[in-house]
Amino acid sequence: MAHNPMQSPMQSPKRSGQDLGEFGLIQSIFQASADAMAKTHPLDAPILGIGDDCAIIAASEMDNLAVTSDMLIAGRHFFTDADPYLLGRKSLAVNLSDLAAMGAKPTGFTLALALPEAQQNWLQSFAKGLFDVAKEFNCHLIGGDTCKGPLAISITAFGKIPRGQSILRSGAKVGDEIWVSNMVGDARLALAAIQNEWPLNLSADEQSMINVRLHSPTPRVELGMALRGVASAALDISDGLLGDLKHILKASGVNAEINIDAIPCSSVLRKQILEIRRLCSACGGDDYELCFTAHSSQNSHIEALSRQLNIPLTRIGSITNKKDGDQSYMILKDQSGKELSLDETKKLLESFDHFHPSS
Amino acid sequence: MAHNPMQSPMQSPKRSGQDLGEFGLIQSIFQASADAMAKTHPLDAPILGIGDDCAIIAASEMDNLAVTSDMLIAGRHFFTDADPYLLGRKSLAVNLSDLAAMGAKPTGFTLALALPEAQQNWLQSFAKGLFDVAKEFNCHLIGGDTCKGPLAISITAFGKIPRGQSILRSGAKVGDEIWVSNMVGDARLALAAIQNEWPLNLSADEQSMINVRLHSPTPRVELGMALRGVASAALDISDGLLGDLKHILKASGVNAEINIDAIPCSSVLRKQILEIRRLCSACGGDDYELCFTAHSSQNSHIEALSRQLNIPLTRIGSITNKKDGDQSYMILKDQSGKELSLDETKKLLESFDHFHPSS
Repeated sequence: MAHNPMQSPMQSPKRSGQDLGEFGLIQSIFQASADAMAKTHPLDAPILGIGDDCAIIAASEMDNLAVTSDMLIAGRHFFTDADPYLLGRKSLAVNLSDLAAMGAKPTGFTLALALPEAQQNWLQSFAKGLFDVAKEFNCHLIGGDTCKGPLAISITAFGKIPRGQSILRSGAKVGDEIWVSNMVGDARLALAAIQNEWPLNLSADEQSMINVRLHSPTPRVELGMALRGVASAALDISDGLLGDLKHILKASGVNAEINIDAIPCSSVLRKQILEIRRLCSACGGDDYELCFTAHSSQNSHIEALSRQLNIPLTRIGSITNKKDGDQSYMILKDQSGKELSLDETKKLLESFDHFHPSS
Repeated sequence: MAHNPMQSPMQSPKRSGQDLGEFGLIQSIFQASADAMAKTHPLDAPILGIGDDCAIIAASEMDNLAVTSDMLIAGRHFFTDADPYLLGRKSLAVNLSDLAAMGAKPTGFTLALALPEAQQNWLQSFAKGLFDVAKEFNCHLIGGDTCKGPLAISITAFGKIPRGQSILRSGAKVGDEIWVSNMVGDARLALAAIQNEWPLNLSADEQSMINVRLHSPTPRVELGMALRGVASAALDISDGLLGDLKHILKASGVNAEINIDAIPCSSVLRKQILEIRRLCSACGGDDYELCFTAHSSQNSHIEALSRQLNIPLTRIGSITNKKDGDQSYMILKDQSGKELSLDETKKLLESFDHFHPSS
């Protein structure tokens, strides 16, 4: 893949195969085989298989179980010299974020860890970070495997969700509005600063503030659970808001209209030039906020939820009709309601090549 | 760790941290943290956590869920140029073997796969091997993650088991006999032949026969399920029979007496010199047969099971009393009933340094 200035050399721990060209093909091989097997072997087939934030399997009369797996590789998803405490936190947090996006309540996880050497200090810190998050969300380490090898962290997390209440990517409908939790873009800005990608003017305090957002994301578990029966579709923003939202549009067979300048940004990001602000907020990954859709009749309920949970929830656009047979697309508008030019849109979306902007 | 001629440079995909010195400490850090959290956060704590073949979590009124995770690293657990079809088979088979050891019925698994490059042929073969085993045991791929990185395969597998019927490592009692399924030692012999460790005289047919046992192990799922309510303890033989059996003795607080020459071997292994035969059958890993204990009153039932499932089941010894406060140990006897000398025992057990043979 050619170098794309909008993509960082460091990837979101959750950047899925779907966006990675050749690796997208891999996912499709496994997904096709799994789908075929579900048809020939219906016994114990999952309620929801590969393709959403989590798989859903039947557990009891009352509950289903949401299951998600992520693998984080040193030098690819995190810096090799990453702070082990923060790495421990983030390794679990990104998985809990997947559970949150389905509306699931975390219960447990397994950890497979490959390490070049057993450094006690590193491990103690990593375990501390991991268990601080585990305790916060009452999610138990139930098993695992440790071996020598290039540093790699593979976590599979489980969560309970009452039957029929999972929030899927496929439920968005015309008449729904599109919401984003808290703020997005800081993680991408922090990465740019660390890697000296662009000339940025950040104070030490500002740098610290956005570093926390990169290294210590907050999985929106409570929000996800509160959105059961409220949101029509949801996912967590790991690869960038617009790129992730595209999965909802595709799965739901709808289009969207987005006010690109309504995307909630931190004060640090708002101070940057328009191009950087839009790029980070619309396309930056690693934020782990939730993007969800809900019918406009839910607006006041969602605003009440926001106050109750003390999490800003911002409307950034709405779901629109898709023409039969066309691919899903989104129209991007600026704060004045003016559609972005094809050039502007292209520039912003050039990493998401499956999209066909409106003009 | 000094070079130990009994250990191969290539490890069983499931060699646990417990036997690996410094990596044993890692497991203990995570296990201690998990146990502590289960006490302070009892909600959703697993029924059985780290330390057995699988964790057990509550699922429904009827069933529990057994969960197991393994990570396989290229160059460590398998040869970098391993046949991808067989690697796909084995990656899932070793996890199903863990489920079998608990008496669980496989239902699904997740796959996290790191690959240096996306080679379509390699991937198609790997997926074919994986799904051939998945279909055979009706175990669905429900999710996963694929990324670029040093070749690593992390699978988490799930299985159902009626409440209260899990076969744990901790249930062995005085009066129980010790059983092994099919035959053990061929996988270790095959590895020795491939790596030219010892001078062996094997025909091409013999080499092929034992290679199958190394590269394409059979998880004893049907047997594990049939042993519910029959076996008092069980595990699968991944690291070597005696080393694995030690986990049962330790967890159950008992000792054992083993007829080292009763351990079932293939005709190929029986043709080797006594030292190699004993080493491979008693200490060779990667066989994925079941070792289980059952009260002697079950003997005729187990023999009937063996005929019914067409799997040889062989008694190799019995569970004996442990003195209070002592560590568990095993007495090894030869076919004439004579105890192995301290030297012979030491030689055979030198890789399992937690054991204190009888003399």
